[in-house]
Amino acid sequence: MSEKSIENIRHSLSHLLAAAVLKKYPDTKLGIGPTIENGFYYDFLFTKPINDADLIEFEKEMRALIKQSLDFKSEEITSAAAKKLFKNQPFKLELIEELAKEKSPMSLYHTSDIFTDLCRGPHVKNTKEINHDAFKLTHIAGAYWKGSEKNPMLTRIYGLAFNTNKELEDYLVFMEEAKKRDHRELGKKFEIFTFSEEIGQGLPIWLPNGTIIKDLIENLAKEKEAAEGYQRVSTPVITKENLFIKSGHLPHYKESMYAPMDIDGENYYLKPMNCPFHHTVYASKPRSYRELPLRLAEYGLCHRYEKSGELQGLMRVRSMDMNDAHIYVRPDQVRDEIKRVIELHEFYYKLFEIKKIKYRLSLHDKKELGKKYVDMPKAWIENEKILREVLQGLKVDFYEAENEAAFYGPKIDIQVYSIIGKEYTLGTVQLDFAQPQRFDLKYIDDKGKEVMPYVIHRAPLSTHERFIGFLIEHYAGAFPFWLSPVQIKILPVGENHVKKCQEIKDSLSAEKFRVEIDDSGETLGKKIRGAEMQKVPYTIVIGDKEMESGKIAVRERGKKDIETIELDKFIENCQKLTIKI
Amino acid sequence: MSEKSIENIRHSLSHLLAAAVLKKYPDTKLGIGPTIENGFYYDFLFTKPINDADLIEFEKEMRALIKQSLDFKSEEITSAAAKKLFKNQPFKLELIEELAKEKSPMSLYHTSDIFTDLCRGPHVKNTKEINHDAFKLTHIAGAYWKGSEKNPMLTRIYGLAFNTNKELEDYLVFMEEAKKRDHRELGKKFEIFTFSEEIGQGLPIWLPNGTIIKDLIENLAKEKEAAEGYQRVSTPVITKENLFIKSGHLPHYKESMYAPMDIDGENYYLKPMNCPFHHTVYASKPRSYRELPLRLAEYGLCHRYEKSGELQGLMRVRSMDMNDAHIYVRPDQVRDEIKRVIELHEFYYKLFEIKKIKYRLSLHDKKELGKKYVDMPKAWIENEKILREVLQGLKVDFYEAENEAAFYGPKIDIQVYSIIGKEYTLGTVQLDFAQPQRFDLKYIDDKGKEVMPYVIHRAPLSTHERFIGFLIEHYAGAFPFWLSPVQIKILPVGENHVKKCQEIKDSLSAEKFRVEIDDSGETLGKKIRGAEMQKVPYTIVIGDKEMESGKIAVRERGKKDIETIELDKFIENCQKLTIKI
Repeated sequence: MSEKSIENIRHSLSHLLAAAVLKKYPDTKLGIGPTIENGFYYDFLFTKPINDADLIEFEKEMRALIKQSLDFKSEEITSAAAKKLFKNQPFKLELIEELAKEKSPMSLYHTSDIFTDLCRGPHVKNTKEINHDAFKLTHIAGAYWKGSEKNPMLTRIYGLAFNTNKELEDYLVFMEEAKKRDHRELGKKFEIFTFSEEIGQGLPIWLPNGTIIKDLIENLAKEKEAAEGYQRVSTPVITKENLFIKSGHLPHYKESMYAPMDIDGENYYLKPMNCPFHHTVYASKPRSYRELPLRLAEYGLCHRYEKSGELQGLMRVRSMDMNDAHIYVRPDQVRDEIKRVIELHEFYYKLFEIKKIKYRLSLHDKKELGKKYVDMPKAWIENEKILREVLQGLKVDFYEAENEAAFYGPKIDIQVYSIIGKEYTLGTVQLDFAQPQRFDLKYIDDKGKEVMPYVIHRAPLSTHERFIGFLIEHYAGAFPFWLSPVQIKILPVGENHVKKCQEIKDSLSAEKFRVEIDDSGETLGKKIRGAEMQKVPYTIVIGDKEMESGKIAVRERGKKDIETIELDKFIENCQKLTIKI
Repeated sequence: MSEKSIENIRHSLSHLLAAAVLKKYPDTKLGIGPTIENGFYYDFLFTKPINDADLIEFEKEMRALIKQSLDFKSEEITSAAAKKLFKNQPFKLELIEELAKEKSPMSLYHTSDIFTDLCRGPHVKNTKEINHDAFKLTHIAGAYWKGSEKNPMLTRIYGLAFNTNKELEDYLVFMEEAKKRDHRELGKKFEIFTFSEEIGQGLPIWLPNGTIIKDLIENLAKEKEAAEGYQRVSTPVITKENLFIKSGHLPHYKESMYAPMDIDGENYYLKPMNCPFHHTVYASKPRSYRELPLRLAEYGLCHRYEKSGELQGLMRVRSMDMNDAHIYVRPDQVRDEIKRVIELHEFYYKLFEIKKIKYRLSLHDKKELGKKYVDMPKAWIENEKILREVLQGLKVDFYEAENEAAFYGPKIDIQVYSIIGKEYTLGTVQLDFAQPQRFDLKYIDDKGKEVMPYVIHRAPLSTHERFIGFLIEHYAGAFPFWLSPVQIKILPVGENHVKKCQEIKDSLSAEKFRVEIDDSGETLGKKIRGAEMQKVPYTIVIGDKEMESGKIAVRERGKKDIETIELDKFIENCQKLTIKI
C-alpha cells in the first residue's frame, strides 16, 4: 500500500479510538486525534483516571468496529451547525471558534452512524481497508491542550498502526531494543552523566566516565582537524547584544536564546552559536587570498533556551559543546572544501561504525529570492550545482529538497542510523553567502582587490551531548576499546594474587590504558559478571596458574572463551585498537 | 634603613611634590598623596593640562626643597579651623566633612613654613633624611576622585623613591625590562589573544597561537592529574541561584558575580567558582571511605564581575578557565594529600623554570572563632600543625601569617617570581572544614558510620588567563620548544628548494611537530630575522648544499651558529624536548 493509504488508516484508527472511548465513558471531552510517525494518538479529558485495562478494552472495541465494515463519510458544515452539534465538547467548540475566525471551511467525518468528528480527513473509505491485526494501543501520557502549560492537562492515548502484522511485530521488537538502549537509562547505569534539579533543567553534568568519553572525542576532533589544516580558537561564551543584532540572531532567534544579563548597563547574552565570534577573529586582521581557506575550529559552549517540556536527556539540552568550525573560502574553493568536509563526515561515520547515512541537499526557490532567501541568484545556481556534483562524485546516498535551503545559502543535512536502525539528525553543512556581508568580511585577492569570502558552517561530531547520547544508544553502552571509560579490568582470584595484579596494572597504566582492579571480596564468577555488566572490553584473571606461567588469562567482552597470552602481546593487541590520526 | 623609614620618606616626598606643584601653579586643587609600592603619588586638579616638562621642573624643585633641610611638624586642629585653612581646596573640604562626621581627630602636617597638608603622617623629621638622588617622578595618569566615575577626573603624578640611587637605578632597569615583557604588548605581537569592544570588556578571545598554548597546558594538566589519580568531571557554567545561596557565595560574594538571568521565572547565575558543582557530583551517590581521597578535577569556566577600571590584560579578566580540583579527604588523609598537592605545585614550577617561590601559611586567630572563622577549634589547631609540618618537611621557603586564614580553614598562598624577578600570585591551597557541612557531604567510614569529609581546594596552574599572561612575561614570548605555537620554521633559499622543504615539513608534521614553511619571496636574511622575531625555537634552512648532502641546516633561537645534521637526528633531538608525563 502507498504512504497515503497508511496515513488514512492511522487517521481512521484515531476516530475508532474516540468512538471506543465514548462508548465506555460517554462524558469524556474530546481533544484532537492526528497521525504521527508509525501511528496515531487522541487526546481526551476523562472524568476519572484510566489505566492499562481500559486500553485493552478500547483496543478490543476498535477491532470489533473494524469488523463491522463501517463507512467513513465527509460532510461540509456551517459553524453555527457545528457549534450546536458539539455543544457538550468545549475543546471542539474552541476549534470551531478559531476556524470561524479564520473563515476556514469546516467539515465533519462520520464513522457510519456511531461517531462523528470535526475533521478535514482524509480517511479510508471503509474499515475493511484496515488490518485489525496490525495496530496496537501502546501507552498513555499527559499532554497540555494545545501544548501550553496554561491549558488543562489531557490524557493522550498512543497507538501504533501498520499495513501488516509483521511490520507491527518488527516495530515492537525494534522499540523494545531501542528502549533497552535508551541513553537516559544507560547514562545513569554507566555513570556517564546526570542532571541536578538544584543546578537547573537541561544542563548536563558529565560524571568521570562521561568526561573521559567527551575528552576522547574532543581529542579525536582536535587531532583530525589539525591534520586537516584547521586552526583552533577559543572565544567567550557571553557577548554584548550588539553582536547578535548584527548577526541577525536577536531579531530572528531571540526565543531560543537565554534571557540577557545586565552588565555595566548593557545587555549581555549567552551565545547560542559560535559563528559571530569566529567572524570577529577573522576580522581581527587583514586577510590575503593566500590565507584561504581559513578554517577556524572550536568546541564552543553554546546555550539555547529550549522549553522545559521539550528537554530530553542529552538529545535536547540547554547547554551544549559544539564540534564547530567556520571555513572562510574564496568562491573558487567551494568545491574542494565541501568535498573535504563531506569526506570528514564519512571518516567519522566509518570510525564510529555507522553503516547507513542519508544526505539531504536543500535548495532555494527562485520565487523566494529576496524574501525567504538572500537575493544572490547567480551564487545560488552556481553553488547548488557544485554541491550536487560533490555529492554525486562521492557516491553518497542523497536526495534533494526544493525550497528547503537556509536563508544564507544551500545546505546539506545528514541523517544517520544506529546499529538497530534508529534515525538521528547529527550534522548539517551550510554554505553561507550572507553572514560575511553582515560582518563586512573581506580578503585581498591576487589583484589587490577587496573581495567577500563565503563561509562554510559544519559540525560533523554534532554537540558532545547529542553525539554521546547517540553513541550510548548505538553501542548500547558497549563502547569500542578506545572509547571505553574502563578499558581493562583485572581480577585477582585470591588475596595472594592482588600484588601481581597491581604490577600488571602499573604496566598497562604506563601505556596510558585505563585499568581497574576488582579487589572486592566477591567470588571470581561475580567479579566476571560485574565486569561484563560494566561492558569492560577486556577482563584479565590472575590466579595461581597465571602466577606460575607468567602469562595472563584474558576474556573479551561478550565472549565465553579465555585466551592465555603474554602481557607484552596483549599490550601490543590493545595498542592496535587505539585510534591514531 | 627600616621599612618604616622608607615609608616616611615616600610620604614626605608626596608633600614636597604638592609644594612644588603649588609653587608653579598656585590655583591647583589638591587631592590626596599616599605612598604606594616603591613610591608615592599625589592627585591634583590643574587649571590646564601639564606635560613631561612640568614633571622635570617639579622634580628639580623637590630636590631644591630637600637641600633646604626642612622640618616636618604635625599639629592637631579643629574641623572649623581646618575648613577655614582649606577654604579654597574643595577636595580637602570634602575630606574634612567626612572626618568631622566620623568624629575622627584631625591633624595637619607642616613642611617648614612652605606647605601644609591635612594629613595623619607619619613623615621624616627633616628632609635631610631623604636621599635626593634616590627618587624620580615617573609619569602622570588620570584618576577619578575617590575612584568613582561619578566624580571629577584628577591628574595623578607618580614618583618612585628608594633609600639609595643604586636601588632606584636597578628598579628602573627592572621596570624597563618588565615593560618589554608586558603580556598585553607581546600577546598582540605574537597573536596570542585579543579583546573585542563589540563582545565585551575582560572577555579574552584566544587566537590560534594562544589556543595552542592553552590546549598544551590543559593536556599537561590532564595527563599529570590522571597520573596522580584525579578523575575529571565537566559541569555547567550556569546554575539556579539556590546553589550559590547554599554555598554562601550569594550572601557574601554577590558583588563579584555577574547579574542574574531570568529563566522560567527563576534566577540563574554564571558560576564564579566550581566548588558547589563538584560537591553536587560528590553527593550524586553514596561514598565509602574506600573511595577517598576522591579527586574531582575540571578546567572550569568561571565568570567574575570585575569593575571595568580594574581589568588588566589577561591578569584581571571577567571570564577565566580555572585549573580547578576539589579533593575530598578523610581527616586522617590531610597530611598525605596536602603533601602531594604541594609537590604537584613544585613539579609544575620546575617544569616552567620558576626559580623563586614563596609559600605563606595563613592561620586562624582563636579570638575570632565563630566570627571570622568557622568554630571548630580542634580542627584548626590539628590541621594548622599538619600544614606547617608538611611545608617544613618539603623544605620549601615559607612564612606564617596569623589571623589571615579563610573562613573555612587554613590556607597556603603561593607567590612566584618570573625570570626577571617580577612577583605574581598564582596559587592557593585551601583546606576547608565548612563547605562539606553546608552541602551535607558524607562518607561511610570503616565502622559503617556517616562522617563528614574535608575538602582541599587547589589550582596550581591558576587560570589559563593568569598563567599564560605570566608565561608570556616570564619567557618574554620565547616559549620553550614544547610550548611554542610554531616549533620549527623551514626556509627555502630559492624557488627550487620549496619541494624539499615540503617533504621535510611532512616528515616533521607526521611526528606531530608544529611546522611552517616561509615561502615568501623575501631574502634568506630577512626570513631568518622573521623567524627570530617570531621566537621560533628552530629554523631549518634548505639550499643547494643541503639538497646535495641530504642533511639539514638548523639554527637554534637566539644562537648564531648553524648546525648541519641528519633530519632523523634532528627529530630525535626534538622528541627529547617534548614533555612526557
